[in-house]
Amino acid sequence: MKAPAGPRLSDRQRLNWLRLIRTPNVGPASFRDLVNRFGSAEAAIEILPELTVSGGARRPARIPSPAEAEAELEAARKAGARFVAIGEPDYPLTLRTMAHPPPLLAMRGEGAVCRLPVVAIVGARNASLAGVKMARTLATGLGEAGYAVVSGLARGIDTASHQGSLATGTIAALAGGLDRPYPPENAGLCDEIVSAGGALVSEMPFGWQPRAQDFPRRNRLVAGMALGLVVVEAAKRSGSLISARLAGEMGRLVFAVPGSPLDPRAAGTNGLLKDGAILVTETADVLTALAPLAGTPAPPAGALEEPPDFSATPPPGEDDRARIVEALGPTPVETDEIIRHTGLHPAQVFMVLLELDLAGRLERHAGGQVSLLFPD
Amino acid sequence: MKAPAGPRLSDRQRLNWLRLIRTPNVGPASFRDLVNRFGSAEAAIEILPELTVSGGARRPARIPSPAEAEAELEAARKAGARFVAIGEPDYPLTLRTMAHPPPLLAMRGEGAVCRLPVVAIVGARNASLAGVKMARTLATGLGEAGYAVVSGLARGIDTASHQGSLATGTIAALAGGLDRPYPPENAGLCDEIVSAGGALVSEMPFGWQPRAQDFPRRNRLVAGMALGLVVVEAAKRSGSLISARLAGEMGRLVFAVPGSPLDPRAAGTNGLLKDGAILVTETADVLTALAPLAGTPAPPAGALEEPPDFSATPPPGEDDRARIVEALGPTPVETDEIIRHTGLHPAQVFMVLLELDLAGRLERHAGGQVSLLFPD
Repeated sequence: MKAPAGPRLSDRQRLNWLRLIRTPNVGPASFRDLVNRFGSAEAAIEILPELTVSGGARRPARIPSPAEAEAELEAARKAGARFVAIGEPDYPLTLRTMAHPPPLLAMRGEGAVCRLPVVAIVGARNASLAGVKMARTLATGLGEAGYAVVSGLARGIDTASHQGSLATGTIAALAGGLDRPYPPENAGLCDEIVSAGGALVSEMPFGWQPRAQDFPRRNRLVAGMALGLVVVEAAKRSGSLISARLAGEMGRLVFAVPGSPLDPRAAGTNGLLKDGAILVTETADVLTALAPLAGTPAPPAGALEEPPDFSATPPPGEDDRARIVEALGPTPVETDEIIRHTGLHPAQVFMVLLELDLAGRLERHAGGQVSLLFPD
Repeated sequence: MKAPAGPRLSDRQRLNWLRLIRTPNVGPASFRDLVNRFGSAEAAIEILPELTVSGGARRPARIPSPAEAEAELEAARKAGARFVAIGEPDYPLTLRTMAHPPPLLAMRGEGAVCRLPVVAIVGARNASLAGVKMARTLATGLGEAGYAVVSGLARGIDTASHQGSLATGTIAALAGGLDRPYPPENAGLCDEIVSAGGALVSEMPFGWQPRAQDFPRRNRLVAGMALGLVVVEAAKRSGSLISARLAGEMGRLVFAVPGSPLDPRAAGTNGLLKDGAILVTETADVLTALAPLAGTPAPPAGALEEPPDFSATPPPGEDDRARIVEALGPTPVETDEIIRHTGLHPAQVFMVLLELDLAGRLERHAGGQVSLLFPD
């Protein structure tokens, strides 16, 4: 499949996107806000030190130097990888429909696989033989039906899902850098995925060794890329259930494979079914439910987001900042409430929240809610 | 629990009810129609030979003699059993809400158990150990919560369900006569059920050895007595699925225990779940769904049905019969359609259909539809 034409970042833009997204306290949400407000990552980088100090940080944000970003670009090239920006042709289509999609994605392998409709298959690491067989069968069936299968490269169900869809196109989302596959024994599987025409993707920097707290972010990526997520085996309170919850919140279809109530590895999937997940015993169950979605026109891959025009609004003053901080607390509130409560212009509230975010003092929640973080 | 007061048949009425229901081609529907039309079983027996000939039977119906019915009453007494008529206090409450409930039920054991709210547990004869354990656990839990558990006395899941609810009250519905338990190895379980305060019920005559074609009728009885029916393990195209279909048609809640898609004994239950059955992994799942129903006031156990007054309507003539038979065919139609199509009085259509039924020429379907039976 030839990559479709579309806007691409210049080398200079890509370098600055990478510098900005690698800056501490800059996440997908604040990245978007910064580019929207200041027109480019380069302009945002200029103003960032000032903003973080305004937001109450003790010292200005530590923005990676151009040389440091170049070093990561070089590490990617050496690993046969590249960085794909949101809006570029290789960026996974469905991922764009998630709240706060990652602006830049490290990718190794074929971008073409990301333009197929994608379905996620996830589940327990300590899977049963039956679970592994089920995952492999579903992955093969979905692949033959024209879907790319995304999973998290973990042991058990994830590995089986990748193996079952090797021939048709599989995508592994990594919790660490693309050069730090986890578990390490799956390094060979990574090479197989790429050789077979699949892809590896990650939000994290090259060289990043994944920690426990990085996996929810990987799960978010898996759910975000897919039209639907199938959970094959999952114990109570397991990571796969977090993936399912995230998928549900994103409006993805959630599927679960049932199991005996006496099998603890089915407690999670049976629970999902009680909560309304679609029951899966064979590939056709997934295909039937996904069919209407797979034909949904994807958002136009062309345009990057147009920044709103705030040029006529005066910047917030010290008093405005104090009022907004006072209005915030540990309980998440909607931005609209803050605007109503303070009577400030939306652009001013927007700026102060961005400053607080960059200073590491703001937490963003689902549905656009925010709360104040307090030092421990 | 003391039996509540309520209307009871006289000995003479009970004898005639038994004679009428044991007459060939008289089923629950035509029994009700006959009693409604002629005021009593005794009056219906008088007129029956004439009706069957009008309906086109080669010879008048063979109505059991009073001596034959006395002999069955005596067999019941010897077996410690009795016949309970619809409307009498021991008649299972929920069974009355079924279409065409059996007018007379042979019962051995305590009528009190039939006045508890009832839940059915059914499933595979060749159950797995896990299935047996699940059935027993559910039966015990539901019994402790105040439900009587009804099942079909079969091997596997049925047996486990009875065993699990022995202490709290269990009801076995038999496919043959109460003195012919099937499988024979469960004769001991029958005695245990009765000793423990449970009950055995059957629609079939004493001495009747159950044949394969008698089991669907037993399944209908199981579903009819219960507010909800739980299927624990069931293969594709198994009898338990017929019970579930019947229960659904009767408006009972249908529950199913999930299992691995690779286990053929879960294919039926997983299929039920896909069709909307309520997923059960623990007793609470059943209790939660049944709670609103268990409080539903049962239909008044007092009044027998009042016969409609057809005295002003002339009886149907030969021409009327011919027109109705002509309007009927092998495809089920509604009685209202026949009335509209023929322009005859509803009472006349009702009588002709009853005659055809008694002559063995009519088949009754769900939703009050009827079709003509043709000789093979």
